Amino acid sequence: MKIAVAQLNFHVGNFESNTQKIINKIQDAKNQCVDLVVFSELAVCGYPPRDFLEFNDFINSCLDSIDEIASYTRGITVIVGAPSRNETGHGKPLFNSAFILSEGKVQKHIHKTLLPTYDIFDEYRYFEPNREFEVVEIKGVQVGVAICEDLWNVGNNPLYTQTPAIALKEKGAKLIVNIAASPFSYQQDAERKEVLKENAEKTGLPIVYCNHVGAQTELIFDGGSFFMNKNGEVASQESFFEESLIINDVDISSGEFKAGSIQSGSKIQLIHDALVLGIKDYFKKLGFKKAIVGLSGGIDSAVTFALAARALGSDNVYGILMPSQYSSDHSVEDAKALAENIGAPYDIIAIKDIYDAYDEKLKPIFKGLPFGLAEENLQARIRGVLVMAASNKFGHIVLNTSNKSEAAVGYGTLYGDMCGGLAVLGDVYKTDVFELARYINKDEEVIPENTIVKPPSAELRPDQKDSDSLPDYDVLDAVLFEYIENRKGPRELVALGYDEALVTRILKMVNINEYKRYQTPPILRVSHKAFGMGRRMPIVAKYLL
Amino acid sequence: MKIAVAQLNFHVGNFESNTQKIINKIQDAKNQCVDLVVFSELAVCGYPPRDFLEFNDFINSCLDSIDEIASYTRGITVIVGAPSRNETGHGKPLFNSAFILSEGKVQKHIHKTLLPTYDIFDEYRYFEPNREFEVVEIKGVQVGVAICEDLWNVGNNPLYTQTPAIALKEKGAKLIVNIAASPFSYQQDAERKEVLKENAEKTGLPIVYCNHVGAQTELIFDGGSFFMNKNGEVASQESFFEESLIINDVDISSGEFKAGSIQSGSKIQLIHDALVLGIKDYFKKLGFKKAIVGLSGGIDSAVTFALAARALGSDNVYGILMPSQYSSDHSVEDAKALAENIGAPYDIIAIKDIYDAYDEKLKPIFKGLPFGLAEENLQARIRGVLVMAASNKFGHIVLNTSNKSEAAVGYGTLYGDMCGGLAVLGDVYKTDVFELARYINKDEEVIPENTIVKPPSAELRPDQKDSDSLPDYDVLDAVLFEYIENRKGPRELVALGYDEALVTRILKMVNINEYKRYQTPPILRVSHKAFGMGRRMPIVAKYLL
Repeated sequence: MKIAVAQLNFHVGNFESNTQKIINKIQDAKNQCVDLVVFSELAVCGYPPRDFLEFNDFINSCLDSIDEIASYTRGITVIVGAPSRNETGHGKPLFNSAFILSEGKVQKHIHKTLLPTYDIFDEYRYFEPNREFEVVEIKGVQVGVAICEDLWNVGNNPLYTQTPAIALKEKGAKLIVNIAASPFSYQQDAERKEVLKENAEKTGLPIVYCNHVGAQTELIFDGGSFFMNKNGEVASQESFFEESLIINDVDISSGEFKAGSIQSGSKIQLIHDALVLGIKDYFKKLGFKKAIVGLSGGIDSAVTFALAARALGSDNVYGILMPSQYSSDHSVEDAKALAENIGAPYDIIAIKDIYDAYDEKLKPIFKGLPFGLAEENLQARIRGVLVMAASNKFGHIVLNTSNKSEAAVGYGTLYGDMCGGLAVLGDVYKTDVFELARYINKDEEVIPENTIVKPPSAELRPDQKDSDSLPDYDVLDAVLFEYIENRKGPRELVALGYDEALVTRILKMVNINEYKRYQTPPILRVSHKAFGMGRRMPIVAKYLL
Repeated sequence: MKIAVAQLNFHVGNFESNTQKIINKIQDAKNQCVDLVVFSELAVCGYPPRDFLEFNDFINSCLDSIDEIASYTRGITVIVGAPSRNETGHGKPLFNSAFILSEGKVQKHIHKTLLPTYDIFDEYRYFEPNREFEVVEIKGVQVGVAICEDLWNVGNNPLYTQTPAIALKEKGAKLIVNIAASPFSYQQDAERKEVLKENAEKTGLPIVYCNHVGAQTELIFDGGSFFMNKNGEVASQESFFEESLIINDVDISSGEFKAGSIQSGSKIQLIHDALVLGIKDYFKKLGFKKAIVGLSGGIDSAVTFALAARALGSDNVYGILMPSQYSSDHSVEDAKALAENIGAPYDIIAIKDIYDAYDEKLKPIFKGLPFGLAEENLQARIRGVLVMAASNKFGHIVLNTSNKSEAAVGYGTLYGDMCGGLAVLGDVYKTDVFELARYINKDEEVIPENTIVKPPSAELRPDQKDSDSLPDYDVLDAVLFEYIENRKGPRELVALGYDEALVTRILKMVNINEYKRYQTPPILRVSHKAFGMGRRMPIVAKYLL
């Protein structure tokens, strides 16, 4: 059987565009004499549709799209994801379904059994789980259709009480097709292959895996769809971060596909490519072209600016340099050098006069209290107001430059440097930001060397360094990783060997800053635990430390 | 059997305080010769604990608390909510449980069957559902213990495939005890009574209903616990919005309790009381005392300020008046009159000089582009910076004053009037804000009459009125209610009889402003669909309009 996997970049709610993309790929597949073409989970509406699923009008549009797509399926079988209505009279009102289309109509729909409801996933919010299994005959082959998480009830983390792959095997499946919407993290491709290998091994069946590609606000889908032999080996794989259609032939008797190319990439390379796509799709799908970045001369704004230039083009990124009386000379020079290396426009606005205007008005209210946090934040907020004024005037989107270490410990000013439409580095620890800068510079100096080597500083008071307020970033990031990504509590962190005073200091900073993170722009997710929709902590609470 | 219902205000994660409260009420109940004392759902850790539940250290603290509480149960039976570990080896790692304690130890735990995963609820994110039913014998009575949602699989909305009340009845229950954490909305008490009545009627059993009270960030729990006779009539009910312990006797043969008082309140009265508690608990549980409000002379800031004064005391609210060149004379006079009526301190900071300092710097960048949105937002953002400077200097929390109508259509400036630690009116439509103002003034003029009767204006350009940009609030709020609360899509709204152009205009405003609401402070929830955790819409998407 000749099978095509269509790895496409859908736009949530854009039925016209999504449907057209699907129809085009069906035609391509037909032209190449394909028997079965597979599209990803909830392809017709895009993933994740979130609370759009609660709107009847939205579900009607999904089902209209399915009918339209079905009319193009003479001589070919199509598997495509869409929601379907639960007509049983009890349970959630929808199923997350795979529609099997051929001969111009809907032949069947198969519902998702395991509904991921953790981290960024909320599927039981909308969908009723499937409870009965059946296979679908395509070109004489019994095919078991599974939807993403259906293959993720794995040995070391059996989150569910059912294992659909085994149920499908028992029903006679000779091949498993998995349609997915599996978001990127830098470990995800390896984990996916591991998890699907476990399914192949325990069923002895080959697997066709079709993933989304493209970014939807904070979530980036990396694609990397593949054909897996029954022994768990990947036979061929589609590219990461771009649309494609790959075709393979399965030999059902041997359970093997034809061998082709396999994808891989280093952690930093994957994060780099993911962030570029994340920025690109955010702008494109919202209908914007240009970004504004406040350039401090520091590494976070430099990396953000360079990534934005790669995503949008050098002409479409605009830097604003806003030195204060506490800015060092090199900060302006480094920021200018960055913009010039990139060939991007920039302006300089010194903020001292504006600062003085505030100071004049606040002095009588502050009644002689000394310079402190209020005045430091004031500078950051003046910069926030300036970039937002430019954003409103020119209609460009401000990119936020906070990194994950800062976001974690609250080392940033709400409505100041924490402003923006999208946070590019909010899921990248500071230590990885340095590596990203090196990666960006691998062929030529884009980010000035001095920006990379100088000690990080917020420059909000004389001779300030990050290290005055924070532990060294390598230590900080290690503890944060255990607390954020691995959900180790304070007692467990101490048991891991971390100094108790250090743990207390870091965790307290993280905890008291939940209120700030609540108001952060959406953060492009590149790890398996990002701030935002995947991490839901109370603001008002007594924390364990 | 003599039963006490302890309706308490817990603090999420504050095990010491929560445990002590529970132990104190057990002692009170013992002193009154009570047989059974009932505490609410997840009482030991507070509700909702959210992703704290993913921390082992947190679960250990819950179980330690249960052991401590158990040691106080000689001569009395206690039902209290806490998470428990799922030891079956598959499924989610926890259950949401009711612990039955007596004779100094844990006798049993019963797990929650129906896990609400919609609106603000995420329970299947953490918990495995119960699948087997059993009753508990207390003083010779077979008691069926249910946890909150377990009684909510109701006829007109059967969200689940099981109905625990019927299963418990079949197991021989003569009485149902429901421990809950059911957040307030202004319709909730009536709906709860209706839903529990359906359970009483279909089982013929009396019900003891114990609810949380108190606010947890955006969620306000109203209490209003009750004893319901087997015919569905409420026999007696605890107060709204305050802690209490009420005791009643059940006659198992008749299925009736002793009659006592019942609570009720008008929509606006309930919203008023809920918001006062919401503000009070936000400050108290975070360890703050004082609030800052930017006073514009308009009705939203006036109502916010008055509610804050009731929650925190007149001395603990501080108003900052920040007139610009576009502010009318009456705006300052009205704001001063408000602060003086309340007896609260205030300061006045004219923003023109600061505005001019920005203008001077932005002029060369803006290259002669005319006054517009950027300059309007600039004024709002200068005010945001000023209130935040005062917040940082004095350590007080800024209260956000945006109402739900504004938040819906994006009629507000991000980082300007949208700033603050807590949004007091973000779930109150403008038409209800007027009613709240009248309610606040029912005994004496707190909010100046002129603030209530003048046409709403943002005063960001000469002679501006809200009605220049927005439909009349009564029309706007009606359409918003159908779209937000009732999830009616554009085609359905037109079918309901609303003008198509009006629907298009309003829905487009709502949709394009998801990015602003993403960065809004937490909003006190008073309706059944508030912006925030209960409404999860994509930012990047093509909307139906």
